[in-house]
Amino acid sequence: MENFMFKNFISKILSHQKVAVFSHLRPDGDCLGSQVALSLWLQKNGIEVTAFNEDDVPGNMNWLETFFPISKPSKDKLQDFDAFIVVDGNALHRFGETAESLKNLGKPIFMVDHHPDPDDIFEEFVSVVSASSTCELIYQLYAEHNADQIDEHAAKAMYLGLVTDTGSFQFDSVKPATMHVAADLLKRGEFTPNEITERIYASRPLRQLKLLSMALDTIELHANGLFSTICITQEMFEATGCTNEDTEGFVQYPLSVEGVKACVLFREDGDRIKLSLRSQSDKIDVNKWARSFNGGGHQKAAGAWHEGPLKKAVKDVISAGREQL
Amino acid sequence: MENFMFKNFISKILSHQKVAVFSHLRPDGDCLGSQVALSLWLQKNGIEVTAFNEDDVPGNMNWLETFFPISKPSKDKLQDFDAFIVVDGNALHRFGETAESLKNLGKPIFMVDHHPDPDDIFEEFVSVVSASSTCELIYQLYAEHNADQIDEHAAKAMYLGLVTDTGSFQFDSVKPATMHVAADLLKRGEFTPNEITERIYASRPLRQLKLLSMALDTIELHANGLFSTICITQEMFEATGCTNEDTEGFVQYPLSVEGVKACVLFREDGDRIKLSLRSQSDKIDVNKWARSFNGGGHQKAAGAWHEGPLKKAVKDVISAGREQL
Repeated sequence: MENFMFKNFISKILSHQKVAVFSHLRPDGDCLGSQVALSLWLQKNGIEVTAFNEDDVPGNMNWLETFFPISKPSKDKLQDFDAFIVVDGNALHRFGETAESLKNLGKPIFMVDHHPDPDDIFEEFVSVVSASSTCELIYQLYAEHNADQIDEHAAKAMYLGLVTDTGSFQFDSVKPATMHVAADLLKRGEFTPNEITERIYASRPLRQLKLLSMALDTIELHANGLFSTICITQEMFEATGCTNEDTEGFVQYPLSVEGVKACVLFREDGDRIKLSLRSQSDKIDVNKWARSFNGGGHQKAAGAWHEGPLKKAVKDVISAGREQL
Repeated sequence: MENFMFKNFISKILSHQKVAVFSHLRPDGDCLGSQVALSLWLQKNGIEVTAFNEDDVPGNMNWLETFFPISKPSKDKLQDFDAFIVVDGNALHRFGETAESLKNLGKPIFMVDHHPDPDDIFEEFVSVVSASSTCELIYQLYAEHNADQIDEHAAKAMYLGLVTDTGSFQFDSVKPATMHVAADLLKRGEFTPNEITERIYASRPLRQLKLLSMALDTIELHANGLFSTICITQEMFEATGCTNEDTEGFVQYPLSVEGVKACVLFREDGDRIKLSLRSQSDKIDVNKWARSFNGGGHQKAAGAWHEGPLKKAVKDVISAGREQL
């Protein structure tokens, strides 16, 4: 990673008085952690900050809001801000309808992210696809400016993003530098990892494990065991009292079957089917695969939609996936 | 952790010519990783080494045996060795019947471990209860002697122990130092974590997920939700074709339910019930709890046995656990 990659970002953003930070729709640990840590940094450096998200913060991460409040944006208030920052996404539509209207305001928009192919609309941005997480980038921002500004809250917020975007330090995006960042956050924040992981992983409602029990029973192998699928139906949601949020992490299970190179999770969502695709092979690009179904993401993790019904979705998606082999 | 805690250990062990290293029964990633990394270290430093375990290496870790072979010990061969080392356990009975006979040979026995209350029979030992894993201690051994002796195989073996004994860096035993060790192993071994984690977590047979599906359905809460239980029956093993080995990691699921402070996994094993107890509260000591059932371990992780049948075991164990509240 380059040194001083935040140089222009820091000098430009600190020239503003009032800044709003957006995290993306259906927020996860990395976008929320980045948003909160960046908001705390701006605040510490004399900027008046507001953090916005159009969606609710998931229940297992709502402790972040005690570090920095996250509120719903409204279009009529956007004029109050001098500048905007979007984190963990690089196209405004990922941040919702209100964020999309930012492009008409004529005010500078900044961006920090680790997804490929950023939009060409930003005043200044830091985009590092090889970073484990956007939070690892926000750590670099702190480190370049003044690492001693990392307090307990900022450290825990950034650690959240590191953990959630790396499957608890298991992905190939984890480099020695990522581990050193984790070490420094634990040290500066004076906490142990379980304080974060128990909140996000070990505080799930019992219903979620009952849903997982049902979903695991649907796992099937395809294409000589190279692909696997898992399905979550409305019926399962009703039987367990679960919602979409409860399926977080389920996609790792079909991917964990021996010999499987890529998997797809199918989730009935209203009258459509939500697809979550994962690859653990450099030869299978689920970003491309997802594009056949109006989706996209990373090479190893992507999302898309299918009109349904479920059986047809599985058939169509596996059939499209065979082109990757 | 103390500096140079291996000073005496290193000078004494390197005075021998032929050394056998034992890892404990029902081997896990930490004892095997320690054993292989330590055997490689001894070999690099001119010692003739043999690695012994009475039990088989689990299938998802058998790649370690390509780094260093692990064979079954036999009593008649023990006379050939000048000295013995046991890793990741501190009482000979943990290493099996052959290892227990070591005490009658009159030869020095060394030990490296992170469990409490070591036996008083060792020539020289390193026992650090606060260490995340025995592998973190073996890393210290390398670091004190010559860190450049950490090659790819030693690095991967030690990383395995770090990952498996910390639930992938999630436990409170993980300190900044642990993360720095992980970073250094990734760097020296020139690998990314997925090379290890995909082998151990993401290469399970489909049958194991079907067993998990059944087991999750048995999760129940007790003592106002402070305790949870999960059960694995012989019937489930037969229906899925699974064996005991396939239940690795299952105990984390009941522990992950919100509000749960401690959990017990019950597994039908022959005509008895194997108990695995876990705590995530400083106030609940499962080591003590397990002792009521002829078992033991750590404050946060312990094992024991019950005569059965299953229903009675659940009733008795939960009843004994209430004394902890």
